Amino acid sequence: MPDATKDPSRPAPQRLKGPRKKKGLVIINTGDGKGKTTAALGVLFRAWGRKLNVRMFQFIKHTGAQFGEQRAAKRLGIPMEAMGDGFTWLSKDMERTAALAVEQWERCKDAIVDGDDDIVILDEFTYAMHYGWIAVEEVIETLRRRPSLRHVIITGRYAPEALIEYADLVTEMKVVKHPYKDQGIKAQPGIEF
Amino acid sequence: MPDATKDPSRPAPQRLKGPRKKKGLVIINTGDGKGKTTAALGVLFRAWGRKLNVRMFQFIKHTGAQFGEQRAAKRLGIPMEAMGDGFTWLSKDMERTAALAVEQWERCKDAIVDGDDDIVILDEFTYAMHYGWIAVEEVIETLRRRPSLRHVIITGRYAPEALIEYADLVTEMKVVKHPYKDQGIKAQPGIEF
Repeated sequence: MPDATKDPSRPAPQRLKGPRKKKGLVIINTGDGKGKTTAALGVLFRAWGRKLNVRMFQFIKHTGAQFGEQRAAKRLGIPMEAMGDGFTWLSKDMERTAALAVEQWERCKDAIVDGDDDIVILDEFTYAMHYGWIAVEEVIETLRRRPSLRHVIITGRYAPEALIEYADLVTEMKVVKHPYKDQGIKAQPGIEF
Repeated sequence: MPDATKDPSRPAPQRLKGPRKKKGLVIINTGDGKGKTTAALGVLFRAWGRKLNVRMFQFIKHTGAQFGEQRAAKRLGIPMEAMGDGFTWLSKDMERTAALAVEQWERCKDAIVDGDDDIVILDEFTYAMHYGWIAVEEVIETLRRRPSLRHVIITGRYAPEALIEYADLVTEMKVVKHPYKDQGIKAQPGIEF
């Protein structure tokens, strides 16, 4: 049995002593596993608890989607705007999907560069770069122009290398085991959406 | 540039057609990266949005901790109980740390087997198994006895193999890039706690 007092990898303290270097972070949640959007929602929840201003833009998800997160955000008055056509296997009009993403990105730019939010979340935004609808160079240029204390969180698979290079904190969510594929279980409300 | 219409890995639809097999899931968020607790908070947020009953037990974190998540939960009336002594590099009394975890686990058992929550979250619970304070066999036996629709989420590094084997959905959060180590930046309120 490992001895906790000698374990160099046991969890680090959360209340760190000494001066805290304040810096707005660019955070990427990527990979093919679960938890990318969900972890961004967790930050949103924490931030709301601290009375910070947080705003979430959702790409891909249907405009007007009423999943658990939109319902919760609405009840709390947290701005969360889904704008997309559901981009899935079933999407037939990729040009429309792309156009909606570009339109949503224009709003994001305003929020990132101007606006008064402490945290801006761009959910499932990586796809727009991956498929070439929005240039990663333009995204990085926009991030560079933001106020120095503003955090920006970007989620989705296939985060472009240049964005990973620019970001401060990058996590890959990896599938170890997935019930929907392995057991024929479908996504459960409240857990996945 | 990849063609989205031909990409076999583009995101699957979230509103699946056909009958949904309902099943309470055992979900593990593990790995050394960020987002394990945070993704559990995201589920809590979604579930609250759907008016489900959700409850979070926190191990390790100091009893009475007032991080962003505890503040948010308190404001929303979501039960979230931190019970621990902060278990860190600095913890001097591992016996007390262990005893607090065992006491917290007794409450969890009641909530998992009895209780009326749709989702029960055991945050940073893996450490208690990893360090041998609580037997993984007892945990699995308790999970087996829960109502069939109850979801249980367990977070923390070093999830024991037997628990991964038993779980339905397991995600590993992997560090790709970490600012606190690499840039000397400390944890930021609202983002990390």
